Amino acid sequence: MSDAVLAEPPILPAGPFSPAEREAVYHAIHSRRDVRSQFTQRPIDEDTLRRLLTAAHHAPSVGLSQPWNFVIIRSGQVKAKAQAAFVRANAEASAMFPEAQRPLYSALKLEGILQAPINLCITCDHTRGGPVVLGRTHQPEMDLFSTVCAVQNLWLAARAEGIGVGWVSIFHREDLRGILGLPAHVSPVAWLCLGHVDELYAEPELQSKGWAKRLPLDDLIYYESWGQHAG
Amino acid sequence: MSDAVLAEPPILPAGPFSPAEREAVYHAIHSRRDVRSQFTQRPIDEDTLRRLLTAAHHAPSVGLSQPWNFVIIRSGQVKAKAQAAFVRANAEASAMFPEAQRPLYSALKLEGILQAPINLCITCDHTRGGPVVLGRTHQPEMDLFSTVCAVQNLWLAARAEGIGVGWVSIFHREDLRGILGLPAHVSPVAWLCLGHVDELYAEPELQSKGWAKRLPLDDLIYYESWGQHAG
Repeated sequence: MSDAVLAEPPILPAGPFSPAEREAVYHAIHSRRDVRSQFTQRPIDEDTLRRLLTAAHHAPSVGLSQPWNFVIIRSGQVKAKAQAAFVRANAEASAMFPEAQRPLYSALKLEGILQAPINLCITCDHTRGGPVVLGRTHQPEMDLFSTVCAVQNLWLAARAEGIGVGWVSIFHREDLRGILGLPAHVSPVAWLCLGHVDELYAEPELQSKGWAKRLPLDDLIYYESWGQHAG
Repeated sequence: MSDAVLAEPPILPAGPFSPAEREAVYHAIHSRRDVRSQFTQRPIDEDTLRRLLTAAHHAPSVGLSQPWNFVIIRSGQVKAKAQAAFVRANAEASAMFPEAQRPLYSALKLEGILQAPINLCITCDHTRGGPVVLGRTHQPEMDLFSTVCAVQNLWLAARAEGIGVGWVSIFHREDLRGILGLPAHVSPVAWLCLGHVDELYAEPELQSKGWAKRLPLDDLIYYESWGQHAG
Protein backbone atom coordinates (compact mmCIF):
# COMPACT_ATOMS: atom_id res chain seq x y z
CA MET A 1 0.00 0.00 0.00
CA SER A 2 1.28 3.43 -0.91
CA ASP A 3 0.98 6.50 1.30
CA ALA A 4 -1.68 7.78 -1.09
CA VAL A 5 -3.84 4.78 -0.26
CA LEU A 6 -3.53 5.38 3.46
CA ALA A 7 -4.32 9.11 3.26
CA GLU A 8 -7.99 9.89 3.89
CA PRO A 9 -9.58 10.74 0.53
CA PRO A 10 -11.59 13.93 -0.12
CA ILE A 11 -14.92 14.19 1.66
CA LEU A 12 -17.72 16.63 0.80
CA PRO A 13 -20.66 17.95 2.85
CA ALA A 14 -23.75 15.85 2.02
CA GLY A 15 -26.90 16.94 3.79
CA PRO A 16 -30.46 16.75 2.51
CA PHE A 17 -31.40 18.48 -0.75
CA SER A 18 -33.55 21.64 -0.69
CA PRO A 19 -37.29 20.87 -0.64
CA ALA A 20 -37.58 21.79 -4.34
CA GLU A 21 -34.65 19.56 -5.31
CA ARG A 22 -35.99 16.71 -3.23
CA GLU A 23 -39.38 17.02 -4.91
CA ALA A 24 -37.71 16.87 -8.32
CA VAL A 25 -36.13 13.52 -7.44
CA TYR A 26 -39.46 12.17 -6.19
CA HIS A 27 -41.23 13.55 -9.26
CA ALA A 28 -38.87 11.55 -11.49
CA ILE A 29 -39.44 8.42 -9.40
CA HIS A 30 -43.23 8.71 -9.26
CA SER A 31 -43.96 9.86 -12.82
CA ARG A 32 -41.57 7.43 -14.55
CA ARG A 33 -43.43 4.97 -16.78
CA ASP A 34 -42.64 1.90 -18.86
CA VAL A 35 -43.32 3.39 -22.29
CA ARG A 36 -44.57 1.46 -25.31
CA SER A 37 -46.82 3.83 -27.25
CA GLN A 38 -45.97 7.47 -26.56
CA PHE A 39 -42.67 7.84 -28.43
CA THR A 40 -42.45 10.83 -30.76
CA GLN A 41 -40.17 10.73 -33.79
CA ARG A 42 -38.03 13.65 -32.61
CA PRO A 43 -34.42 12.38 -32.52
CA ILE A 44 -32.49 12.27 -29.25
CA ASP A 45 -29.53 14.64 -29.57
CA GLU A 46 -26.02 13.46 -28.77
CA ASP A 47 -25.60 15.63 -25.66
CA THR A 48 -28.79 14.29 -24.11
CA LEU A 49 -27.88 10.69 -24.90
CA ARG A 50 -24.47 11.27 -23.39
CA ARG A 51 -26.01 12.59 -20.16
CA LEU A 52 -28.21 9.47 -19.95
CA LEU A 53 -25.30 7.10 -20.48
CA THR A 54 -23.19 9.06 -17.97
CA ALA A 55 -26.00 8.68 -15.43
CA ALA A 56 -26.08 4.93 -16.07
CA HIS A 57 -22.28 4.74 -15.76
CA HIS A 58 -22.51 6.37 -12.30
CA ALA A 59 -24.63 3.55 -10.90
CA PRO A 60 -23.28 1.62 -7.94
CA SER A 61 -21.37 -1.47 -9.02
CA VAL A 62 -20.05 -4.36 -7.03
CA GLY A 63 -16.37 -3.77 -6.28
CA LEU A 64 -16.55 -0.77 -8.66
CA SER A 65 -16.42 -3.38 -11.44
CA GLN A 66 -18.72 -1.39 -13.79
CA PRO A 67 -19.75 -4.54 -15.67
CA TRP A 68 -22.01 -2.72 -18.15
CA ASN A 69 -21.71 -1.95 -21.84
CA PHE A 70 -24.12 0.12 -23.88
CA VAL A 71 -25.04 -0.96 -27.41
CA ILE A 72 -26.83 1.92 -29.14
CA ILE A 73 -29.13 0.84 -31.95
CA ARG A 74 -30.48 3.24 -34.55
CA SER A 75 -30.45 0.86 -37.52
CA GLY A 76 -33.88 -0.10 -38.79
CA GLN A 77 -32.52 -3.50 -39.78
CA VAL A 78 -31.33 -4.31 -36.27
CA LYS A 79 -34.60 -3.03 -34.78
CA ALA A 80 -36.54 -5.21 -37.22
CA LYS A 81 -34.61 -8.30 -36.13
CA ALA A 82 -35.32 -7.51 -32.48
CA GLN A 83 -38.97 -6.90 -33.22
CA ALA A 84 -39.24 -10.25 -35.02
CA ALA A 85 -37.60 -11.97 -32.03
CA PHE A 86 -40.15 -10.28 -29.75
CA VAL A 87 -43.08 -11.39 -31.95
CA ARG A 88 -41.94 -15.02 -31.84
CA ALA A 89 -41.41 -14.98 -28.06
CA ASN A 90 -44.65 -13.13 -27.42
CA ALA A 91 -46.70 -15.73 -29.30
CA GLU A 92 -45.21 -18.36 -26.97
CA ALA A 93 -45.84 -16.12 -23.98
CA SER A 94 -49.50 -15.59 -24.82
CA ALA A 95 -50.11 -19.34 -24.91
CA MET A 96 -48.76 -19.69 -21.35
CA PHE A 97 -51.59 -17.66 -19.80
CA PRO A 98 -54.95 -19.11 -18.76
CA GLU A 99 -57.43 -18.81 -21.62
CA ALA A 100 -59.48 -16.15 -19.81
CA GLN A 101 -56.48 -13.80 -19.68
CA ARG A 102 -55.39 -14.20 -23.30
CA PRO A 103 -57.68 -11.64 -24.98
CA LEU A 104 -56.48 -8.88 -22.64
CA TYR A 105 -52.87 -10.05 -22.96
CA SER A 106 -53.09 -9.87 -26.73
CA ALA A 107 -54.68 -6.41 -26.59
CA LEU A 108 -51.75 -4.98 -24.62
CA LYS A 109 -48.97 -3.28 -26.56
CA LEU A 110 -45.81 -4.57 -24.92
CA GLU A 111 -43.00 -2.92 -26.90
CA GLY A 112 -42.20 0.09 -29.08
CA ILE A 113 -39.06 -1.26 -30.74
CA LEU A 114 -39.73 0.13 -34.22
CA GLN A 115 -41.33 3.39 -33.04
CA ALA A 116 -38.52 4.39 -30.65
CA PRO A 117 -35.74 6.43 -32.32
CA ILE A 118 -33.14 4.62 -30.23
CA ASN A 119 -33.00 1.09 -28.88
CA LEU A 120 -30.34 0.49 -26.24
CA CYS A 121 -29.11 -2.86 -25.00
CA ILE A 122 -27.37 -2.70 -21.62
CA THR A 123 -25.22 -5.77 -21.13
CA CYS A 124 -23.26 -7.36 -18.29
CA ASP A 125 -19.70 -8.59 -18.83
CA HIS A 126 -19.21 -11.39 -16.30
CA THR A 127 -15.40 -11.14 -16.57
CA ARG A 128 -15.21 -7.41 -15.82
CA GLY A 129 -13.09 -6.63 -12.78
CA GLY A 130 -11.03 -9.82 -13.00
CA PRO A 131 -11.43 -13.34 -11.65
CA VAL A 132 -12.30 -12.27 -8.07
CA VAL A 133 -14.46 -9.19 -7.57
CA LEU A 134 -14.86 -7.53 -4.18
CA GLY A 135 -18.45 -8.07 -3.01
CA ARG A 136 -19.15 -10.76 -5.62
CA THR A 137 -17.35 -13.56 -3.81
CA HIS A 138 -20.53 -14.95 -2.25
CA GLN A 139 -23.22 -13.60 -4.60
CA PRO A 140 -22.09 -14.01 -8.21
CA GLU A 141 -25.27 -12.39 -9.54
CA MET A 142 -24.17 -9.04 -8.06
CA ASP A 143 -22.75 -8.09 -11.47
CA LEU A 144 -26.20 -8.46 -13.01
CA PHE A 145 -27.70 -6.43 -10.15
CA SER A 146 -25.15 -3.65 -10.70
CA THR A 147 -26.15 -3.55 -14.35
CA VAL A 148 -29.82 -3.20 -13.35
CA CYS A 149 -28.88 -0.23 -11.14
CA ALA A 150 -27.43 1.38 -14.27
CA VAL A 151 -30.72 0.76 -16.08
CA GLN A 152 -32.70 2.44 -13.32
CA ASN A 153 -30.34 5.44 -13.16
CA LEU A 154 -30.80 5.92 -16.91
CA TRP A 155 -34.58 5.51 -16.65
CA LEU A 156 -34.90 8.26 -14.02
CA ALA A 157 -32.50 10.61 -15.83
CA ALA A 158 -34.52 10.04 -19.00
CA ARG A 159 -37.72 11.05 -17.22
CA ALA A 160 -36.07 14.35 -16.25
CA GLU A 161 -35.04 14.86 -19.89
CA GLY A 162 -38.57 14.25 -21.18
CA ILE A 163 -37.51 10.94 -22.68
CA GLY A 164 -39.58 7.81 -22.23
CA VAL A 165 -38.04 4.40 -21.70
CA GLY A 166 -39.59 0.97 -22.19
CA TRP A 167 -37.91 -2.25 -21.04
CA VAL A 168 -38.73 -5.18 -23.34
CA SER A 169 -38.14 -8.53 -21.65
CA ILE A 170 -40.16 -10.91 -23.84
CA PHE A 171 -37.19 -12.29 -25.72
CA HIS A 172 -35.15 -15.43 -25.77
CA ARG A 173 -31.79 -14.14 -24.57
CA GLU A 174 -30.07 -16.22 -27.24
CA ASP A 175 -31.91 -14.25 -29.94
CA LEU A 176 -30.52 -10.98 -28.55
CA ARG A 177 -27.08 -12.52 -28.28
CA GLY A 178 -27.22 -13.48 -31.96
CA ILE A 179 -28.60 -10.14 -33.16
CA LEU A 180 -25.90 -8.12 -31.39
CA GLY A 181 -23.06 -10.64 -31.69
CA LEU A 182 -22.51 -10.80 -27.93
CA PRO A 183 -19.65 -13.05 -26.78
CA ALA A 184 -20.35 -15.88 -24.35
CA HIS A 185 -19.10 -13.98 -21.29
CA VAL A 186 -21.57 -11.14 -21.86
CA SER A 187 -25.27 -11.29 -20.95
CA PRO A 188 -27.91 -9.00 -22.40
CA VAL A 189 -29.65 -7.58 -19.31
CA ALA A 190 -32.05 -4.93 -20.62
CA TRP A 191 -33.38 -4.12 -24.08
CA LEU A 192 -34.63 -0.54 -23.80
CA CYS A 193 -36.64 1.61 -26.21
CA LEU A 194 -35.96 5.35 -25.90
CA GLY A 195 -37.65 8.38 -27.38
CA HIS A 196 -39.00 11.79 -26.49
CA VAL A 197 -42.51 11.78 -25.06
CA ASP A 198 -45.01 14.60 -24.71
CA GLU A 199 -47.34 12.63 -22.47
CA LEU A 200 -47.34 9.58 -20.21
CA TYR A 201 -49.97 7.49 -18.48
CA ALA A 202 -50.94 8.88 -15.08
CA GLU A 203 -50.68 5.37 -13.59
CA PRO A 204 -48.71 2.31 -14.69
CA GLU A 205 -50.20 1.18 -18.00
CA LEU A 206 -50.87 -2.36 -16.76
CA GLN A 207 -52.89 -0.93 -13.85
CA SER A 208 -54.80 1.50 -16.06
CA LYS A 209 -55.69 -1.31 -18.42
CA GLY A 210 -56.89 -3.69 -15.73
CA TRP A 211 -54.06 -6.24 -15.84
CA ALA A 212 -52.73 -5.73 -12.29
CA LYS A 213 -53.08 -3.39 -9.31
CA ARG A 214 -50.65 -1.52 -7.12
CA LEU A 215 -50.31 -3.48 -3.85
CA PRO A 216 -50.83 -1.66 -0.52
CA LEU A 217 -47.36 -0.74 0.74
CA ASP A 218 -48.20 -1.67 4.33
CA ASP A 219 -48.76 -5.29 3.29
CA LEU A 220 -45.15 -5.44 2.10
CA ILE A 221 -43.41 -4.12 5.20
CA TYR A 222 -42.15 -6.38 7.97
CA TYR A 223 -40.16 -5.63 11.10
CA GLU A 224 -37.13 -7.57 12.33
CA SER A 225 -38.21 -10.82 10.63
CA TRP A 226 -40.38 -12.15 7.83
CA GLY A 227 -44.11 -11.96 8.49
CA GLN A 228 -43.92 -9.63 11.50
CA HIS A 229 -46.13 -6.62 10.80
CA ALA A 230 -45.92 -4.78 14.12
CA GLY A 231 -43.08 -2.24 14.28
CA MET B 1 -62.82 -7.52 -21.15
CA SER B 2 -65.01 -4.82 -19.71
CA ASP B 3 -65.63 -1.46 -21.36
CA ALA B 4 -63.48 0.11 -18.64
CA VAL B 5 -60.55 -1.94 -19.89
CA LEU B 6 -61.03 -0.77 -23.47
CA ALA B 7 -61.37 2.91 -22.60
CA GLU B 8 -58.13 4.86 -22.97
CA PRO B 9 -56.77 5.52 -19.46
CA PRO B 10 -55.78 8.98 -18.18
CA ILE B 11 -52.72 10.53 -19.79
CA LEU B 12 -50.72 13.48 -18.44
CA PRO B 13 -48.34 15.92 -20.12
CA ALA B 14 -44.77 14.71 -19.62
CA GLY B 15 -42.13 16.98 -21.08
CA PRO B 16 -38.64 17.61 -19.74
CA PHE B 17 -38.14 18.92 -16.21
CA SER B 18 -37.00 22.53 -15.64
CA PRO B 19 -33.21 22.88 -15.73
CA ALA B 20 -33.09 23.16 -11.91
CA GLU B 21 -35.22 20.05 -11.44
CA ARG B 22 -33.17 18.13 -13.97
CA GLU B 23 -29.96 19.11 -12.17
CA ALA B 24 -31.43 17.85 -8.89
CA VAL B 25 -32.00 14.41 -10.41
CA TYR B 26 -28.46 14.33 -11.79
CA HIS B 27 -27.08 15.59 -8.47
CA ALA B 28 -28.70 12.62 -6.70
CA ILE B 29 -27.30 10.22 -9.31
CA HIS B 30 -23.76 11.63 -9.29
CA SER B 31 -23.29 12.28 -5.57
CA ARG B 32 -24.83 8.99 -4.36
CA ARG B 33 -22.29 6.82 -2.57
CA ASP B 34 -22.10 3.33 -1.11
CA VAL B 35 -21.78 4.30 2.56
CA ARG B 36 -19.94 2.30 5.20
CA SER B 37 -18.42 4.83 7.59
CA GLN B 38 -20.31 8.14 7.57
CA PHE B 39 -23.53 7.18 9.37
CA THR B 40 -24.54 9.51 12.20
CA GLN B 41 -26.61 8.21 15.09
CA ARG B 42 -29.55 10.56 14.42
CA PRO B 43 -32.62 8.32 14.01
CA ILE B 44 -34.52 8.24 10.71
CA ASP B 45 -38.02 9.56 11.38
CA GLU B 46 -41.07 7.57 10.29
CA ASP B 47 -42.19 10.05 7.61
CA THR B 48 -38.80 10.00 5.93
CA LEU B 49 -38.58 6.21 6.05
CA ARG B 50 -42.07 6.04 4.55
CA ARG B 51 -41.05 8.30 1.65
CA LEU B 52 -38.06 6.05 0.96
CA LEU B 53 -40.15 2.88 0.96
CA THR B 54 -42.79 4.55 -1.21
CA ALA B 55 -40.07 5.48 -3.69
CA ALA B 56 -38.88 1.86 -3.75
CA HIS B 57 -42.47 0.65 -4.20
CA HIS B 58 -42.82 2.85 -7.30
CA ALA B 59 -40.01 1.09 -9.12
CA PRO B 60 -40.81 -0.59 -12.41
CA SER B 61 -41.71 -4.25 -11.96
CA VAL B 62 -42.19 -6.99 -14.48
CA GLY B 63 -45.91 -7.36 -15.22
CA LEU B 64 -46.53 -4.92 -12.32
CA SER B 65 -45.83 -7.91 -10.06
CA GLN B 66 -44.14 -5.81 -7.33
CA PRO B 67 -42.18 -8.81 -6.01
CA TRP B 68 -40.48 -6.89 -3.20
CA ASN B 69 -40.90 -6.93 0.57
CA PHE B 70 -39.14 -4.64 3.03
CA VAL B 71 -37.84 -6.03 6.30
CA ILE B 72 -36.93 -3.12 8.58
CA ILE B 73 -34.33 -3.97 11.20
CA ARG B 74 -33.65 -1.78 14.22
CA SER B 75 -32.93 -4.58 16.71
CA GLY B 76 -29.33 -4.68 17.89
CA GLN B 77 -29.62 -8.46 18.21
CA VAL B 78 -30.61 -8.93 14.58
CA LYS B 79 -27.90 -6.52 13.44
CA ALA B 80 -25.34 -8.44 15.49
CA LYS B 81 -26.32 -11.71 13.81
CA ALA B 82 -25.98 -10.10 10.38
CA GLN B 83 -22.64 -8.60 11.32
CA ALA B 84 -21.36 -11.99 12.49
CA ALA B 85 -22.51 -13.54 9.20
CA PHE B 86 -20.62 -10.81 7.33
CA VAL B 87 -17.44 -11.39 9.36
CA ARG B 88 -17.49 -15.12 8.57
CA ALA B 89 -18.09 -14.56 4.85
CA ASN B 90 -15.55 -11.76 4.65
CA ALA B 91 -12.79 -13.93 6.08
CA GLU B 92 -13.51 -16.42 3.29
CA ALA B 93 -13.63 -13.59 0.75
CA SER B 94 -10.27 -12.17 1.79
CA ALA B 95 -8.60 -15.53 1.24
CA MET B 96 -9.87 -15.62 -2.37
CA PHE B 97 -7.79 -12.61 -3.46
CA PRO B 98 -4.17 -12.81 -4.62
CA GLU B 99 -1.83 -12.32 -1.70
CA ALA B 100 -0.68 -8.89 -2.94
CA GLN B 101 -4.24 -7.53 -2.74
CA ARG B 102 -5.06 -8.88 0.73
CA PRO B 103 -3.58 -6.10 2.89
CA LEU B 104 -5.60 -3.45 1.05
CA TYR B 105 -8.70 -5.67 1.05
CA SER B 106 -8.45 -6.10 4.81
CA ALA B 107 -7.93 -2.36 5.32
CA LEU B 108 -11.21 -1.52 3.56
CA LYS B 109 -14.32 -1.08 5.70
CA LEU B 110 -17.01 -2.92 3.77
CA GLU B 111 -20.11 -2.54 5.95
CA GLY B 112 -21.69 -0.35 8.61
CA ILE B 113 -24.26 -2.83 9.92
CA LEU B 114 -23.93 -1.94 13.60
CA GLN B 115 -23.39 1.79 13.07
CA ALA B 116 -26.43 2.33 10.82
CA PRO B 117 -29.64 3.15 12.75
CA ILE B 118 -31.65 1.06 10.30
CA ASN B 119 -30.79 -2.05 8.34
CA LEU B 120 -33.24 -2.91 5.57
CA CYS B 121 -33.47 -6.19 3.71
CA ILE B 122 -35.27 -5.93 0.37
CA THR B 123 -36.45 -9.35 -0.73
CA CYS B 124 -37.94 -10.91 -3.86
CA ASP B 125 -40.98 -13.20 -3.66
CA HIS B 126 -40.71 -15.53 -6.67
CA THR B 127 -44.41 -16.43 -6.46
CA ARG B 128 -45.69 -12.83 -6.51
CA GLY B 129 -48.02 -12.18 -9.42
CA GLY B 130 -49.05 -15.80 -9.85
CA PRO B 131 -47.69 -18.77 -11.79
CA VAL B 132 -47.27 -16.86 -15.09
CA VAL B 133 -46.11 -13.24 -14.97
CA LEU B 134 -46.30 -10.95 -18.00
CA GLY B 135 -42.75 -10.20 -19.14
CA ARG B 136 -41.22 -12.99 -17.03
CA THR B 137 -42.17 -15.82 -19.38
CA HIS B 138 -38.76 -15.93 -21.08
CA GLN B 139 -36.54 -14.31 -18.46
CA PRO B 140 -37.41 -15.67 -15.02
CA GLU B 141 -34.80 -13.48 -13.31
CA MET B 142 -36.86 -10.38 -14.20
CA ASP B 143 -38.41 -10.51 -10.71
CA LEU B 144 -34.96 -10.13 -9.17
CA PHE B 145 -34.19 -7.29 -11.58
CA SER B 146 -37.43 -5.51 -10.60
CA THR B 147 -36.39 -5.78 -6.97
CA VAL B 148 -33.02 -4.20 -7.78
CA CYS B 149 -34.84 -1.28 -9.46
CA ALA B 150 -36.61 -0.77 -6.13
CA VAL B 151 -33.24 -0.71 -4.36
CA GLN B 152 -31.89 1.95 -6.72
CA ASN B 153 -35.04 4.11 -6.39
CA LEU B 154 -34.64 4.01 -2.63
CA TRP B 155 -30.92 4.76 -2.85
CA LEU B 156 -31.47 7.92 -4.92
CA ALA B 157 -34.40 9.11 -2.79
CA ALA B 158 -32.22 8.58 0.28
CA ARG B 159 -29.50 10.79 -1.20
CA ALA B 160 -32.06 13.59 -1.60
CA GLU B 161 -33.09 13.12 2.05
CA GLY B 162 -29.50 13.33 3.30
CA ILE B 163 -29.51 9.63 4.15
CA GLY B 164 -26.64 7.39 3.20
CA VAL B 165 -27.14 3.82 2.01
CA GLY B 166 -24.66 0.95 1.93
CA TRP B 167 -25.35 -2.35 0.16
CA VAL B 168 -23.64 -5.27 1.91
CA SER B 169 -23.27 -8.30 -0.36
CA ILE B 170 -20.59 -10.33 1.42
CA PHE B 171 -22.98 -12.84 2.94
CA HIS B 172 -24.01 -16.40 2.37
CA ARG B 173 -27.65 -15.96 1.32
CA GLU B 174 -28.60 -18.88 3.53
CA ASP B 175 -27.34 -16.97 6.58
CA LEU B 176 -29.66 -14.06 5.79
CA ARG B 177 -32.51 -16.46 5.15
CA GLY B 178 -32.00 -17.98 8.58
CA ILE B 179 -31.61 -14.66 10.41
CA LEU B 180 -34.83 -13.22 8.96
CA GLY B 181 -36.82 -16.46 8.72
CA LEU B 182 -37.39 -16.11 4.98
CA PRO B 183 -39.49 -18.84 3.37
CA ALA B 184 -38.07 -20.86 0.48
CA HIS B 185 -39.92 -18.89 -2.21
CA VAL B 186 -38.38 -15.60 -1.08
CA SER B 187 -34.80 -14.50 -1.91
CA PRO B 188 -32.91 -11.83 0.00
CA VAL B 189 -31.74 -9.44 -2.74
CA ALA B 190 -30.18 -6.50 -0.90
CA TRP B 191 -29.05 -5.96 2.69
CA LEU B 192 -28.91 -2.20 3.11
CA CYS B 193 -27.54 -0.02 5.91
CA LEU B 194 -29.30 3.35 6.26
CA GLY B 195 -28.51 6.43 8.30
CA HIS B 196 -28.25 10.19 8.09
CA VAL B 197 -24.92 11.44 6.77
CA ASP B 198 -23.34 14.88 7.02
CA GLU B 199 -20.61 14.12 4.51
CA LEU B 200 -19.78 11.67 1.75
CA TYR B 201 -16.69 10.79 -0.26
CA ALA B 202 -16.26 12.99 -3.33
CA GLU B 203 -15.53 9.88 -5.41
CA PRO B 204 -16.50 6.22 -4.96
CA GLU B 205 -14.64 5.01 -1.87
CA LEU B 206 -13.01 2.10 -3.71
CA GLN B 207 -11.57 4.55 -6.25
CA SER B 208 -10.39 6.99 -3.58
CA LYS B 209 -8.64 4.19 -1.74
CA GLY B 210 -6.89 2.78 -4.79
CA TRP B 211 -8.87 -0.45 -5.22
CA ALA B 212 -10.38 0.28 -8.66
CA LYS B 213 -10.82 3.10 -11.15
CA ARG B 214 -13.72 4.57 -13.05
CA LEU B 215 -13.59 3.22 -16.62
CA PRO B 216 -13.70 5.68 -19.54
CA LEU B 217 -17.33 5.77 -20.70
CA ASP B 218 -16.36 5.78 -24.38
CA ASP B 219 -14.74 2.37 -24.01
CA LEU B 220 -18.11 0.95 -22.96
CA ILE B 221 -20.25 2.26 -25.83
CA TYR B 222 -20.87 0.26 -28.98
CA TYR B 223 -23.08 0.93 -32.00
CA GLU B 224 -25.43 -1.54 -33.64
CA SER B 225 -23.42 -4.58 -32.50
CA TRP B 226 -20.90 -5.72 -29.94
CA GLY B 227 -17.39 -4.32 -30.46
CA GLN B 228 -18.32 -1.64 -33.00
CA HIS B 229 -17.06 1.70 -31.68
CA ALA B 230 -17.87 3.97 -34.63
CA GLY B 231 -21.34 5.55 -34.43
